[in-house]
Amino acid sequence: MTEQSLTRNIYLHDVPLDEAIADWHTALGAAGLLAPLGKETIPLTEALGRVTAEPVWARISSPHYHAAAMDGFAVRSEDTRGATETSPLLLRLGEQALPVDTGDPLPAGMNAVVMIEQTQPVSQDGAEYIEILASSAPWTYVRPMGEDVVASELVIPANHRLRPQDLGAIAGSGHSVVSVYPRPRVAILPTGTELVTIGSELKPGDIIEYNSLMLGAQAEEAGCIVTRLPIVRDDYAAIRDAVAAALESHDLVAINAGSSAGSEDYTSAIVQELGELRVHGIAIRPGHPVVLGLARGKALVGIPGYPVSAAMTFDLLVKPLLYRWQGLELPEKPTVQATLTRKTLSPLGEDHFLRVTLGK
Amino acid sequence: MTEQSLTRNIYLHDVPLDEAIADWHTALGAAGLLAPLGKETIPLTEALGRVTAEPVWARISSPHYHAAAMDGFAVRSEDTRGATETSPLLLRLGEQALPVDTGDPLPAGMNAVVMIEQTQPVSQDGAEYIEILASSAPWTYVRPMGEDVVASELVIPANHRLRPQDLGAIAGSGHSVVSVYPRPRVAILPTGTELVTIGSELKPGDIIEYNSLMLGAQAEEAGCIVTRLPIVRDDYAAIRDAVAAALESHDLVAINAGSSAGSEDYTSAIVQELGELRVHGIAIRPGHPVVLGLARGKALVGIPGYPVSAAMTFDLLVKPLLYRWQGLELPEKPTVQATLTRKTLSPLGEDHFLRVTLGK
Repeated sequence: MTEQSLTRNIYLHDVPLDEAIADWHTALGAAGLLAPLGKETIPLTEALGRVTAEPVWARISSPHYHAAAMDGFAVRSEDTRGATETSPLLLRLGEQALPVDTGDPLPAGMNAVVMIEQTQPVSQDGAEYIEILASSAPWTYVRPMGEDVVASELVIPANHRLRPQDLGAIAGSGHSVVSVYPRPRVAILPTGTELVTIGSELKPGDIIEYNSLMLGAQAEEAGCIVTRLPIVRDDYAAIRDAVAAALESHDLVAINAGSSAGSEDYTSAIVQELGELRVHGIAIRPGHPVVLGLARGKALVGIPGYPVSAAMTFDLLVKPLLYRWQGLELPEKPTVQATLTRKTLSPLGEDHFLRVTLGK
Repeated sequence: MTEQSLTRNIYLHDVPLDEAIADWHTALGAAGLLAPLGKETIPLTEALGRVTAEPVWARISSPHYHAAAMDGFAVRSEDTRGATETSPLLLRLGEQALPVDTGDPLPAGMNAVVMIEQTQPVSQDGAEYIEILASSAPWTYVRPMGEDVVASELVIPANHRLRPQDLGAIAGSGHSVVSVYPRPRVAILPTGTELVTIGSELKPGDIIEYNSLMLGAQAEEAGCIVTRLPIVRDDYAAIRDAVAAALESHDLVAINAGSSAGSEDYTSAIVQELGELRVHGIAIRPGHPVVLGLARGKALVGIPGYPVSAAMTFDLLVKPLLYRWQGLELPEKPTVQATLTRKTLSPLGEDHFLRVTLGK
């Protein structure tokens, strides 16, 4: 890459978006940073929304025994043969008909269940019976062992984002934990002497630092564990040291602001000092002063300070990586054909992203 | 409603779905339980995904001062008049041209910014100048005070689900907290002597209790704070006492299983003892043994035990209420026209919900 100086410098490279991504991804791939970052085993109660790192195979069948599928009476199919509305049959309670509730195991010797609604209690000669008006074929209203899932069957494939019903299926097949990809750990480092924290009294030139709030929320929405670091003033060594410390315990560090060519813009130099600078400047608008690199086996990006640029470049460049790390495809954004109500001039050789309001 | 007994009883009412919802909602509405359950003020760092209970008005303008929009030099537009490529002008550094970075306040007396890329440094007669090749109209590359937001302007309306960029907008307009609807507190109470916790050794008749895992995840996905209560055996008083305790600190209590007409099904009787039973049995399949009611100013539901029924009735009956409590419209489910590959017979007078696999 070109040599960076700490003095004011002008972008030497505004590379096209596709090229920038390809270049960065090549370097990330070589460092093993384009795939999920390991596996971890977690309890099912914490697994909603997480992505399976391995297929889940059933440990037990479900049901794991022949189960009554209705409230009623367990019977022998043979004993019910011939019952009709005009010639009902009586089954002796406790012998030929055993009361069962839904989910109860089918008592030994029985092979069908008659719904309670289709029986009448009858007392006769000091004994208790139920009257039935129809015969029951074997296995009627019985959920046979393994009806839902047979032990060793695939329950959930790998790379699957866990929904509530998936958690139920995994638990029902005999597991209490599941192997998932770790949530990426993302640090956001706001830099700039002009920045003040949310809620401060303001004087001219003060800028409320809310990009870390927004970028952090974008990363949280993408499933990450986020650290919002304290603001660091425009001091090369202070920023470098904060970045180096953050790299220790995060998978991606995003330095916010300090990525353009202003006199206090140190990001590209810091990326270069700590690791490998791959991209400095992308031919997109807004957002061109982006820095992409890696250092100490972690991803390292410089995000422009202007909030719209910050949100957009994070979405465009960082979010796809966060998804990859979790074994997920980035969902495609819906597109719509529309007519612009005013003329828009885009600079030649740049991808221009416009926010629009849709109307009909 | 009909009198409930603790002995085996058969559904007397399988009311149509719409009627059941209307009846329950009428009772909930009368108890003030069809609208958000209050307001709370929370820090912006915790507000992602929450719904505003009040509109947010800007406390300050953004920017709150005239700001340089580019790295370069602040100038007086008048001083640049007449500069062209063929007759450049020199502006004296420190007097006519003051270096500024993006976001810096425009120095007093200046009214435009020239991009650094469009200047050349020139030393002449021991003084420093910049050379410019074009004139700058007033306010060129200046973000005037209030360009994005003017103090007192509406930033975010009420009933708006907060996205990352909304958090930025609220912080940028001078707030560090936001007023939102509270997250509904939902308790799930699994009941049944046959139930065992996830991970237990199983004997015939044991049922792994994972509905509370699944139903809890459904409620979490809908934005709620969830308590999964310990399993209670089939004991009327024990279940009633657990429900009564849960009602103290939750907005909705869901009793799982115990809502059909089996001999150990106490839910409807408990709802009646503690409050008001509105619906017992809905003409839907799966899921008909549903109990809907309210007690002590809280919503109280009985969810069938069969997992598919449990998930579906929660989705169909409980989730819309959880959304209402958060000021949200339930997103419409996408629909698609398709041809069934096998004949399906639905019982007359019931809404039949079938899970299908879509193919093309």
